[in-house]
Amino acid sequence: MIEGLKALLPNERLDDLLTHDLRIIQSPEVFSFSMDAVLLARFASVPVRGRILDFCTGNGVIPLLLTTRTKARIDGVEIQPRLADMASRSVRINNLQEQVYIIEGDLRNYHEQRGYGVYDLVTVNPPYMPANTGDRNENEHVAIARHEIHCTLEEVVTACSRLVRTGGRVAMVHRPSRLVDIMEAMRSVRLEPKRIRMVHPHAEGEANMVLIEAIRDGKPDVRLLPPLIVYNSRKEYNDELVNIYYGPKQGKEEENTK
Amino acid sequence: MIEGLKALLPNERLDDLLTHDLRIIQSPEVFSFSMDAVLLARFASVPVRGRILDFCTGNGVIPLLLTTRTKARIDGVEIQPRLADMASRSVRINNLQEQVYIIEGDLRNYHEQRGYGVYDLVTVNPPYMPANTGDRNENEHVAIARHEIHCTLEEVVTACSRLVRTGGRVAMVHRPSRLVDIMEAMRSVRLEPKRIRMVHPHAEGEANMVLIEAIRDGKPDVRLLPPLIVYNSRKEYNDELVNIYYGPKQGKEEENTK
Repeated sequence: MIEGLKALLPNERLDDLLTHDLRIIQSPEVFSFSMDAVLLARFASVPVRGRILDFCTGNGVIPLLLTTRTKARIDGVEIQPRLADMASRSVRINNLQEQVYIIEGDLRNYHEQRGYGVYDLVTVNPPYMPANTGDRNENEHVAIARHEIHCTLEEVVTACSRLVRTGGRVAMVHRPSRLVDIMEAMRSVRLEPKRIRMVHPHAEGEANMVLIEAIRDGKPDVRLLPPLIVYNSRKEYNDELVNIYYGPKQGKEEENTK
Repeated sequence: MIEGLKALLPNERLDDLLTHDLRIIQSPEVFSFSMDAVLLARFASVPVRGRILDFCTGNGVIPLLLTTRTKARIDGVEIQPRLADMASRSVRINNLQEQVYIIEGDLRNYHEQRGYGVYDLVTVNPPYMPANTGDRNENEHVAIARHEIHCTLEEVVTACSRLVRTGGRVAMVHRPSRLVDIMEAMRSVRLEPKRIRMVHPHAEGEANMVLIEAIRDGKPDVRLLPPLIVYNSRKEYNDELVNIYYGPKQGKEEENTK
């Protein structure tokens, strides 16, 4: 803990990731992870070994969470130097520098340094909103994470397709309103959607998040998984969410390790 | 009832449609409607007046059910003469010949007799399975209804797009495994998916049916509606299904008449 605290810059805090005693550096001025990232890290079909890439890694929450599910090497790519630095320090605080590597870089040209088809799984929690839509946050760090300033949806899926191997998987979280765009963009770069899960805040409400997993050069045939309902009728987290946030109860976990 | 019975051929029976005292001719040898059609007739955004077209109308179940929701004229197109005849007789039994017209014809060239862009809504419950997939029913009537023998998915959406007006709607029920194919096919003919609802047999199970509504020349932006769960944990129909099958309870109905 003392080492962790020494690693903090002004206005940063060290948060618990709850599950498995992980800790993560956050800063309200720059970036805090959201439920979207947590659900994606749980949803993805994770290889037991091999190589995983996380694009738009932010403060590294997805690579950190994935270490609880796999021994695979995990590379996290982040375009913002401030966030890449936070993520790197969180990796060291958790003593995961043998498994997780944070790279400051642009997903659009990452293949130039890394090559094509080298990962078994690529995860990505990209900016959801087109660059020119309203409500743009005045904080540039937050705006870059939320809006397609440095990368469009098409650029994101193109980068994923370049980096993943044939038969490998790409797992993404996004807004349901973009579902048709996502499917069209994925197919155009030979990523075939295979598993989709809708996330609904309430059983009677529309979905506000969608989890999609595609296979590079997969056969067309997609499964629509049971809906993930966040809150029960008493406005408490449902059992599945409690399980995801606070760690699995024996025997209740959906097994999707490949 | 006596008039209805006189209209029956051997091996046909006159079933209640439960809601609104409608009756329908069915035959296990030829065609019986399924839950898919009932859910589609409830899901579609129905114009109060105007013109509605139902492709692959079978024994006319969707036009019959839609008459309970609208005063619009409804045309049902069916390629199999035997089924078109059953549908026509059911229309007469229910005294709906002023509102519902059954046309024996092929959806692939229906625009040649009817023209382009003449309908406010097109509904379709097409064959789900590719022509050359296994489990093909030996009964030719059933095989034509289930397999893409007379029309592929692409031909179905192309026909819908030709017949619907700009800004009009196309509502379809299909298998979730074809979701990506459907979206791609729809966009390729300027039908933009706007409302999607997944149907799950149980809350913890994958979807086995998907309801999709598109708008001709609509703006990309799709809503993922609350999941429709068919059975509750006691293996009884959920309230919403009871409501759909046996008629709405006051004030509980989702209003989607446009």
